[in-house]
Amino acid sequence: MSTPVKIAVVGAGRIGSLHTELLSARVKGAEVVAVADVVSKAAESLAARFEIPVVCSTVDEAIDRGKPDALLVCSSTDTHEEAIEKAAAHGVHVFCEKPLSDTIESIERIRTAVERSAILLQVGFNRRFDASFARVRQAIAGGEIGELHTVRITSRDPEPPPIEYVRRSGGLFMDMTIHDFDMVRFLCGAEPTEMYAIGACRVDPAIGEAGDIDTALVTLRFADGTFATIENSRQAVYGYDQRAEAFGSAGAVSTDNVYPNTATLSNAGGVGRDLPLRFFLERYTESYVNELSGFIGAVRDGGQSSVDVIDGREAVFLAQAAERSRTGGTPVVLDDYRDELGLSG
Amino acid sequence: MSTPVKIAVVGAGRIGSLHTELLSARVKGAEVVAVADVVSKAAESLAARFEIPVVCSTVDEAIDRGKPDALLVCSSTDTHEEAIEKAAAHGVHVFCEKPLSDTIESIERIRTAVERSAILLQVGFNRRFDASFARVRQAIAGGEIGELHTVRITSRDPEPPPIEYVRRSGGLFMDMTIHDFDMVRFLCGAEPTEMYAIGACRVDPAIGEAGDIDTALVTLRFADGTFATIENSRQAVYGYDQRAEAFGSAGAVSTDNVYPNTATLSNAGGVGRDLPLRFFLERYTESYVNELSGFIGAVRDGGQSSVDVIDGREAVFLAQAAERSRTGGTPVVLDDYRDELGLSG
Amino acid sequence: MSTPVKIAVVGAGRIGSLHTELLSARVKGAEVVAVADVVSKAAESLAARFEIPVVCSTVDEAIDRGKPDALLVCSSTDTHEEAIEKAAAHGVHVFCEKPLSDTIESIERIRTAVERSAILLQVGFNRRFDASFARVRQAIAGGEIGELHTVRITSRDPEPPPIEYVRRSGGLFMDMTIHDFDMVRFLCGAEPTEMYAIGACRVDPAIGEAGDIDTALVTLRFADGTFATIENSRQAVYGYDQRAEAFGSAGAVSTDNVYPNTATLSNAGGVGRDLPLRFFLERYTESYVNELSGFIGAVRDGGQSSVDVIDGREAVFLAQAAERSRTGGTPVVLDDYRDELGLSG
Amino acid sequence: MSTPVKIAVVGAGRIGSLHTELLSARVKGAEVVAVADVVSKAAESLAARFEIPVVCSTVDEAIDRGKPDALLVCSSTDTHEEAIEKAAAHGVHVFCEKPLSDTIESIERIRTAVERSAILLQVGFNRRFDASFARVRQAIAGGEIGELHTVRITSRDPEPPPIEYVRRSGGLFMDMTIHDFDMVRFLCGAEPTEMYAIGACRVDPAIGEAGDIDTALVTLRFADGTFATIENSRQAVYGYDQRAEAFGSAGAVSTDNVYPNTATLSNAGGVGRDLPLRFFLERYTESYVNELSGFIGAVRDGGQSSVDVIDGREAVFLAQAAERSRTGGTPVVLDDYRDELGLSG
Repeated sequence: MSTPVKIAVVGAGRIGSLHTELLSARVKGAEVVAVADVVSKAAESLAARFEIPVVCSTVDEAIDRGKPDALLVCSSTDTHEEAIEKAAAHGVHVFCEKPLSDTIESIERIRTAVERSAILLQVGFNRRFDASFARVRQAIAGGEIGELHTVRITSRDPEPPPIEYVRRSGGLFMDMTIHDFDMVRFLCGAEPTEMYAIGACRVDPAIGEAGDIDTALVTLRFADGTFATIENSRQAVYGYDQRAEAFGSAGAVSTDNVYPNTATLSNAGGVGRDLPLRFFLERYTESYVNELSGFIGAVRDGGQSSVDVIDGREAVFLAQAAERSRTGGTPVVLDDYRDELGLSG
Repeated sequence: MSTPVKIAVVGAGRIGSLHTELLSARVKGAEVVAVADVVSKAAESLAARFEIPVVCSTVDEAIDRGKPDALLVCSSTDTHEEAIEKAAAHGVHVFCEKPLSDTIESIERIRTAVERSAILLQVGFNRRFDASFARVRQAIAGGEIGELHTVRITSRDPEPPPIEYVRRSGGLFMDMTIHDFDMVRFLCGAEPTEMYAIGACRVDPAIGEAGDIDTALVTLRFADGTFATIENSRQAVYGYDQRAEAFGSAGAVSTDNVYPNTATLSNAGGVGRDLPLRFFLERYTESYVNELSGFIGAVRDGGQSSVDVIDGREAVFLAQAAERSRTGGTPVVLDDYRDELGLSG
Repeated sequence: MSTPVKIAVVGAGRIGSLHTELLSARVKGAEVVAVADVVSKAAESLAARFEIPVVCSTVDEAIDRGKPDALLVCSSTDTHEEAIEKAAAHGVHVFCEKPLSDTIESIERIRTAVERSAILLQVGFNRRFDASFARVRQAIAGGEIGELHTVRITSRDPEPPPIEYVRRSGGLFMDMTIHDFDMVRFLCGAEPTEMYAIGACRVDPAIGEAGDIDTALVTLRFADGTFATIENSRQAVYGYDQRAEAFGSAGAVSTDNVYPNTATLSNAGGVGRDLPLRFFLERYTESYVNELSGFIGAVRDGGQSSVDVIDGREAVFLAQAAERSRTGGTPVVLDDYRDELGLSG
Repeated sequence: MSTPVKIAVVGAGRIGSLHTELLSARVKGAEVVAVADVVSKAAESLAARFEIPVVCSTVDEAIDRGKPDALLVCSSTDTHEEAIEKAAAHGVHVFCEKPLSDTIESIERIRTAVERSAILLQVGFNRRFDASFARVRQAIAGGEIGELHTVRITSRDPEPPPIEYVRRSGGLFMDMTIHDFDMVRFLCGAEPTEMYAIGACRVDPAIGEAGDIDTALVTLRFADGTFATIENSRQAVYGYDQRAEAFGSAGAVSTDNVYPNTATLSNAGGVGRDLPLRFFLERYTESYVNELSGFIGAVRDGGQSSVDVIDGREAVFLAQAAERSRTGGTPVVLDDYRDELGLSG
């Protein structure tokens, strides 16, 4: 076997720990050589669990001492730009959790850094790598449903995050719908041209008091006349509700939720089954394995990024546009808004 | 058993024939005593099939000679107003196919006539009486899914009507979505306050040339923050796609299409089943039986109409609003539009 | 349209009433001209409901006064032979409810009468005409699953009949499994060569005290090595459980139960749906319409019987063989048993 | 974290390699310290992949040099007895692949060795640890379906093994049905009292020429009147068909196959989905992780074996009884056969 790809993990929180575990146990050809976290206990504990040689508190140290081929950026969003720029400066590739950064301006700077250094950057839109969503994309791309007419994404969390989290989250569109904006682009293989977004606070008044919404409906229109809807809720009491449907001139494809077992129970009260998987780390485990495997492979073989800076930017752009449509109460023509922001295609 | 309710059928076309057959064979307590059609052959042929004593060409004759308790109006939409006014003038109850009339003004005149004469008028929104949609309404009304947050209606025909028909149809919203507008009101048990509608011609360019759309997406908002979407297409190649989902604070409910059998076939190519029912008369047969049974019962017992003039008007109003939103490219605030039309609640 | 086929119904009980209603309302080309029942009130009441001109108490009267083309024998099993012989003597065709008669000897006499008079006789194995079971047969006969290897029939009633009924029923195999024996022959298109049957009393001890079983498992073997199982219970608390699976060299086909609606409900407790249909008349309504339509068509056009005397006899023969296997505790070689009974193929 | 449980793997073939990978990557608290295989290349290659320090060719060496807490016996069946006896002699615990040994006599000797040394022995009936089958057991054990009446196991391979393998397999009952015999015992939580088995060669005549069958149907009866069936085939062209149903006084539970994704595709030809998982290592991966995790936990904590020597023996006993029933053509009373073999309960 070839030399493993050396990874430095930045950020030893929940998602950083998960990625570290998957890189150690499930992903072939990777080796975690350093872990950095400003909370030294977190870094130490993760290093101990997976026998990671370098434990440190900064990106610089992780790069200097770990000599990694790639950085896995799992720290808070406001630190992404700096981490990526340091990686780029050293020619170190980057896998970065979503959102790529807080603002379009920051992402544009990241883009410049990445393009200049020619490093590979992959954004952590893991749902693209889920077997069911990938199958929908395959059906669309492979012509199994003909010419695409409509796409529908259902995306509901099992329960809202703590209000503390809501306050710092950037809002529902930036925190939650961002995955669905990426999914729409992924499934359609095209950029939307117009968006209309409405929102409400139905789940918990405290979310409204924190200035956010917990229920949203986003309508998107594409140049060829394709329509898409995204339906979000912060709380589906029956579990994590993550589905997609696509309809076209030659058929349709739709996915279901994922269940812990296949058993159906019939008794005098009805015919039913256990609740779908509730926890996103469980629902999407295999998608994380797949996205990391793809990244490791691309780093090793010098391949293209499957989810690049533009993908990272567009999801943030759409989240901003949704907020604008919702607060303005009107549809947003996306190219106009793009011009306003000085963005090129 | 009590004396049967005597019915005069006006219009011996496809839907008039179906209703006559169901009244004869499946609905208890009804007797078709007269059939009127300007095409005398159609009236005669239907009368012969079901041994209907009075065959005539006008509503007047049908009422005079048949002495019906109720009129079943299945003639073309432009004749509805006159037929209903004649029935009202004679104190004859009315079951009228959708749409109730071509314009809001005409419906308001019908409303006056009906209220004055105190006859019972039921509009033919048969889908309310379909076991699956009725079960969704029951789940919402009975609190099984808690407080309602979102409703989603999928409504796709198996194939577009002839271009001739499209030209005279009043447009997709008035001809096809009208059923879904009624369904949204029925499921939610409330009136929407805002609407945003977009449309496209994706199925057949000839439909666009005829000035119509064949694909539509309508977003509705309700006073309590509930959202609804309606997704239409003139052509689902896999059959008649008629489904609803509702989501609320305590759960969700969704329906599937109806299949000709329950068989699942597995072979080396996949696991599948036969196509869902394709023909609306077959898919919705039981709903027609149910709506007619309800109407006959209400006439016999002096009950209330389950789908009244206001229901008939609101569906037409929403279809008009949808056209306005689509052509204007902006959301329509429904109360403002209502004011503009001089409509009271 | 051609002259309707004239039917005399013998036996105005539950199934006789159902058939009369279906012949009047749902089956094209039939006219019920006479109804006979030893309980004159039953006959009168049915005649009144469907405007049947001749009401009488005997088969002779029904034939003499009604001049029917066909007799619909829905009276108790012990009267079938006499009714059929009278019909045969007058050249009147017969539709006879299952079982054709109580004993093999009686059925052989019926067979002689039918063959001599060349009347058409159809036995009421309605399940063959159910869309889902018919689809399984179609898959097998059409080669969709290749060469047939195994068949599995699940047949469970929602609740046991009254003990009074159980006592006079002829036993589970003759009363209930008889439908499944016919189904096995229908699905396989072949005769079994060996049978092993076991039974138990699990549902209600009173059934055991009445000398019967309420739970059974029958294994059948065919000449080409195909295996079949039948699983029976007198009580499935979740409703009428009626399914079939077939497996072959190129695939498999299986059916599900029939539900009153397609709605799926998800809440904090699970994901489920309403119970399947419970009442056999509701579950199998369409199959009754289909079997009667087929019979009427065959009478009118001089066609062959789709379920003939041999079919009627073989189901009874298999029920007897099952009882023999169960009480003997060993497999029964069916040809040996056939020889013992002096039966020819 | 506590010291990991040290494991020596005996047999570096397909299943040995899988277990080694799972122990390294997915099972917490285990460490593979030695690998033994008579084919030194196989042992070396596996050791290299997972950095296993001791590589050897015999059980003795693996124990001497690896100082394991437990042996994972994945070598050919004829070597199980010797390996287990060596482990027992050293107080080393054992996880042994099924079947435990070739003959009842050998298993009885293993039983004596295990009982004498008080080591823990777990047999590799992994399907008990599959989430869906475990859910069926839970429903039965937890009373969710009331008193158990019938169990039905469908177990079909996607394709037959090579004829070479068939010849040395011990026959279908010993090689394949053995899993289902264990499953029946696991699901019912009781021992069957009578069995009737029939078999045929339908898939490939070469299997018949090799003296084996490829299609089987086994009927089991339990003391309380519960019935069970097992349906086997060496070839289901649509994939690995592994399902169970249980029926009782208060309801029923059934499982479905496992699919690679949840997507449903509808087009003009039908409504379908991709084939179920085909490869047993993929279908049952999680069950392997679960069974090994349970074993490691039991070794670490001094717990009981969840699948013990008696479980290992009974599956082999039932496989022998099935062969006896099939070749004899009659049901086998299992206690009589047990007496004949001199087996105690």
